[in-house]
Amino acid sequence: MSDQPIIRRRTQKLNTISEERVNNQKTQSQYQPYKDAAWGFINHWYPALFSSELPEDEVQGIQICGVPIVLRRSEGKVYALKDQCVHRGVRMSEKKMCFDKKTVSCWYHGFTFDLKDGRLTTIVGNPDDKLIGTTGVTTYPVHEVAGMIFVFVREDDYPDEDVPPLEHDLPFRFPKDNERFPHPLWPDTPSLLDEGAVAMGMHRTGYGNWRVAIENGFDNAHILVHKDCSIVQAMKWVLPLGIVPTGDDAITVVEDDNGPKGMMQWLFTDKWQPILENKELGVEVKGVNARPYRTSVVMPGVLMVENWPEEHVVQYEWNVPITDDTHEYWEVLVRVCRTPQELDDYKYRFERVYKPLALHGFNDCDVYAREAMQYFYADGTGWDDEQLVSTDLSPITWRKLASRWNRGIAKPGRGVNGATKDSAIRYRETADGKPPRYKTDKVDF
Amino acid sequence: MSDQPIIRRRTQKLNTISEERVNNQKTQSQYQPYKDAAWGFINHWYPALFSSELPEDEVQGIQICGVPIVLRRSEGKVYALKDQCVHRGVRMSEKKMCFDKKTVSCWYHGFTFDLKDGRLTTIVGNPDDKLIGTTGVTTYPVHEVAGMIFVFVREDDYPDEDVPPLEHDLPFRFPKDNERFPHPLWPDTPSLLDEGAVAMGMHRTGYGNWRVAIENGFDNAHILVHKDCSIVQAMKWVLPLGIVPTGDDAITVVEDDNGPKGMMQWLFTDKWQPILENKELGVEVKGVNARPYRTSVVMPGVLMVENWPEEHVVQYEWNVPITDDTHEYWEVLVRVCRTPQELDDYKYRFERVYKPLALHGFNDCDVYAREAMQYFYADGTGWDDEQLVSTDLSPITWRKLASRWNRGIAKPGRGVNGATKDSAIRYRETADGKPPRYKTDKVDF
Amino acid sequence: MSDQPIIRRRTQKLNTISEERVNNQKTQSQYQPYKDAAWGFINHWYPALFSSELPEDEVQGIQICGVPIVLRRSEGKVYALKDQCVHRGVRMSEKKMCFDKKTVSCWYHGFTFDLKDGRLTTIVGNPDDKLIGTTGVTTYPVHEVAGMIFVFVREDDYPDEDVPPLEHDLPFRFPKDNERFPHPLWPDTPSLLDEGAVAMGMHRTGYGNWRVAIENGFDNAHILVHKDCSIVQAMKWVLPLGIVPTGDDAITVVEDDNGPKGMMQWLFTDKWQPILENKELGVEVKGVNARPYRTSVVMPGVLMVENWPEEHVVQYEWNVPITDDTHEYWEVLVRVCRTPQELDDYKYRFERVYKPLALHGFNDCDVYAREAMQYFYADGTGWDDEQLVSTDLSPITWRKLASRWNRGIAKPGRGVNGATKDSAIRYRETADGKPPRYKTDKVDF
Repeated sequence: MSDQPIIRRRTQKLNTISEERVNNQKTQSQYQPYKDAAWGFINHWYPALFSSELPEDEVQGIQICGVPIVLRRSEGKVYALKDQCVHRGVRMSEKKMCFDKKTVSCWYHGFTFDLKDGRLTTIVGNPDDKLIGTTGVTTYPVHEVAGMIFVFVREDDYPDEDVPPLEHDLPFRFPKDNERFPHPLWPDTPSLLDEGAVAMGMHRTGYGNWRVAIENGFDNAHILVHKDCSIVQAMKWVLPLGIVPTGDDAITVVEDDNGPKGMMQWLFTDKWQPILENKELGVEVKGVNARPYRTSVVMPGVLMVENWPEEHVVQYEWNVPITDDTHEYWEVLVRVCRTPQELDDYKYRFERVYKPLALHGFNDCDVYAREAMQYFYADGTGWDDEQLVSTDLSPITWRKLASRWNRGIAKPGRGVNGATKDSAIRYRETADGKPPRYKTDKVDF
Repeated sequence: MSDQPIIRRRTQKLNTISEERVNNQKTQSQYQPYKDAAWGFINHWYPALFSSELPEDEVQGIQICGVPIVLRRSEGKVYALKDQCVHRGVRMSEKKMCFDKKTVSCWYHGFTFDLKDGRLTTIVGNPDDKLIGTTGVTTYPVHEVAGMIFVFVREDDYPDEDVPPLEHDLPFRFPKDNERFPHPLWPDTPSLLDEGAVAMGMHRTGYGNWRVAIENGFDNAHILVHKDCSIVQAMKWVLPLGIVPTGDDAITVVEDDNGPKGMMQWLFTDKWQPILENKELGVEVKGVNARPYRTSVVMPGVLMVENWPEEHVVQYEWNVPITDDTHEYWEVLVRVCRTPQELDDYKYRFERVYKPLALHGFNDCDVYAREAMQYFYADGTGWDDEQLVSTDLSPITWRKLASRWNRGIAKPGRGVNGATKDSAIRYRETADGKPPRYKTDKVDF
Repeated sequence: MSDQPIIRRRTQKLNTISEERVNNQKTQSQYQPYKDAAWGFINHWYPALFSSELPEDEVQGIQICGVPIVLRRSEGKVYALKDQCVHRGVRMSEKKMCFDKKTVSCWYHGFTFDLKDGRLTTIVGNPDDKLIGTTGVTTYPVHEVAGMIFVFVREDDYPDEDVPPLEHDLPFRFPKDNERFPHPLWPDTPSLLDEGAVAMGMHRTGYGNWRVAIENGFDNAHILVHKDCSIVQAMKWVLPLGIVPTGDDAITVVEDDNGPKGMMQWLFTDKWQPILENKELGVEVKGVNARPYRTSVVMPGVLMVENWPEEHVVQYEWNVPITDDTHEYWEVLVRVCRTPQELDDYKYRFERVYKPLALHGFNDCDVYAREAMQYFYADGTGWDDEQLVSTDLSPITWRKLASRWNRGIAKPGRGVNGATKDSAIRYRETADGKPPRYKTDKVDF
């Protein structure tokens, strides 16, 4: 075998994991819970639908953190129950069957559930059965505000009295936090919870794990991805090559007893330095012209972009886990509208400018970028082998605080869509051009 | 961590498995073999094709219980062999290559098999090879009747002399069983095996496990699913809200030495009570107008609906396992036609009335309903966590008798289509709009 | 249970693995490394792209043996690097970002790599980060010749000095091997490495494992598959029923110290006998009229068909592993063209005759045939249960020499496309009609 070269396995310094990477073993151990949370964080408030997606009397099925949920609007109020009939696991949302205003029934065998406590109150065609009253489905608290329906997605035995207010899972408020988070370059940022707040936006399914998606939102070093975006060119913005933290205080972690848990990034201060040239490559940016903004993120992973896309408007983003390889990506703009005219103007500007240029134009780049990272993380390789740098202070800080402050790690979905990844049903739907989705389709019979 | 609520894991009586469910541990232990039979029951007679699907000299490939089978019609008679060449596992059915009336050859390397005993009789281009005569493929007994081809799908070493007659795997016969199963409301139900019987129907692939599909057929409580069906409205039928058994004798189990093994449901007797009102929901049915019928099911899982859709016609249904997540759903109507005119009238009525209104109109609802249960059972959750009620006497009785009287539990398919669920070939076909199917396609070269 | 037949499990000689099969346990043990090489043989030269697929300055991503590779042409020369940014695993090839002629950058965060040694030389927007210079991506030697780009796909720590010349992974040369492999029936076969050689051809993704695909190429017994091909009929070729070896010397194994490792099949000599009749089936071929040719195969699995489709033209075929269930199938014809006119004539004949009749017409049959074997091997069944015959001397000899002379067995891909087979991204692409593929698509932003 003299042609067989002797493989001298010399260590080649290049093709290995560098000791200089920020995410060394010690750091990784501080966010192990986050690495375990492939199916998401449970016992948190999540956006479920826009109010307009659920007319009076309608039912709609969705899935969050592997939990199938059916929403119903009855006499104006929205109720949320586990979308899995106690009988044989059917999704009630596939066909609306409600006999009165207080219940929702499963269309298959008529098992009927109380909207308020989920109790099995009767079976339409079997009203004397002994199972009645002895079981039921989990209910989920609902909070509808500013045109959005939020659901507290919880474990089956999470007690009602421990459910926190929605405010604890929404971004920081202004002017309340003016002192802590001053903003000399723009006016008070609005919030969903303000009087007169109006949310406009869209949500779509993202293909990949929610964590990889979410980290893109507040990662300041990915600005390159946006340099060719239409809105950037149209507005004649000139972006820096990058933005680097000048110290560990470039991000402040917030852990109040009674409020959201999260972090604020001090953009547009001396704590984040824009990089305008790279001598190695002979590249230079002249005359930076960027719109001032600031990002923060709070549990369970909602991004806030202040002063974006214009003054008095704020952008929220969620990446809500559906399964461990799909998520629902929400882009929501909020403005306070005090008069009907303000509301009309806002809706018009949203449709004509914000949605095409920002929600699509700017954020579509991010959607592509997030997918581009998925293969590396899908089989776990990325969580171990990524090599993070100074700008990754952002995701690392997030991972640590998420590991500390999540209210529970969702278990893998069981007996639900996405629990079995390669079912023949899934291939059949795919052959019909319908990939894995967020909402349940209605059957037509 | 003072914001972290102390989770008091109080037992909440609602969101748990009720002790009142009919399928308690003891009951479940009585049908464990059924829970193990994901790939079906082997050593039984199953429908393979309609006679019209296999012209003289043609070959067609199918798959049942994970076994690939090639059918060939030679001099009028149908033969069935394992569709897996002994050489390298190729499906002979993909391209017809038959050099004479006694054999079928594999189109790849010319391995040739005797139609009667499956022996490797020669290799077209290698007639002196020592493998010849020392191996072969399994053959499967065939019984063609009334326009249908049945195959006895067996394990490789199941002896010929133990093959039972087709009658043992077909529904009860009349007038033979008139005494045991009187039918005052309709005339003698015909059978496929009657002189002059003509079968008309269709078969299509169902996406999900065969067991979940089959149980829907004789589950009397799912009548709600049909309330909006066109045929129900067109015929002005008024269905009850439900039908509940009045005692354990609502179903009779049949275990004759020389005959089909199965169960008869005493519908339209006092053993099944229609439910016409639900006080809890304030729902009431007035003036029930339903067509009398009766259901029974025999091994390996063929449903008979007597007096349906009209007198002198019977409906049979099979859900034949292809793999553990696909099955072939057969709907067959049988009528005895004694003259050419009767035959013409029957065919006409089938095309114009029965097929659109019953086979599609009525049963399509069931196809949707069966799929709706699949996610709960696909990963095994459903088999443990379902909560059954009094009306589920039907599936429970079936599961117990199937556990006792099956002639074998099919092993998972090996080296066949569907053994590997996520192959690139499967994705390629799906991208072309072709989901997993029952029949083999012919290659065109 | 008296109806239950007693299953007498008599050994049935037919439906079992024959003791006469050529691939008995002892033989199988001699090619176990081949059975382990589902993802291919690494540390070998493979075709990557045609030169015309990579214009100046462009980048293109591919995958071979589970390794993602990005190719870039800079100042005329082609470079190949691992297409996996050291930061977060992104494929740089998805969007071209090159700031100068010496580097390629990742479009996401601007990590920049030297084309020659793969070192991380800078980060566009973070030029002072400590990771710079301490890590990098693997580079792959490139050899461009005759209109094709070859890449030496290696393990990360395979040293540069051990990289063999391209000639060691290409077929035998003529007139160099005239004495060893005389060819009285046709002139010297050209080679890609000859002065003035021009390669014309195509490559497409095959759905299935590379090994099952490759064995079809030199398997002489599959000639039946081609009997109905258009080119056969058009040229009035009359093929034998089969071709059988007359002794173990029907194939010569080549194991030179400094050259390709492989085997030559002595077709059109007395070592391979054409079979012209099968008495058992009463089939006979009269007046064989076949074009003389000869096949050989060398590591890592490149087939050469001499004197095909015409004199002075040679056909090469590769089945390059992408993953363990996809491969890229290359068909390349090579001719030496000494003048512009010869080149024009060759291109014309290629487009008008060779490509439609041979590359498609003849080889498409093989593409179907290869897929037909995949199910049997996909779950491992085939590698154990196949029953080989005398003509399988060809694949068996290949498997043994491949087991001896491969330079490494590729490990399953990690963190790459195809590592996880059932990702939601894959379903989404499939729903859009795009099955698993070889090349990376460019994102448009």
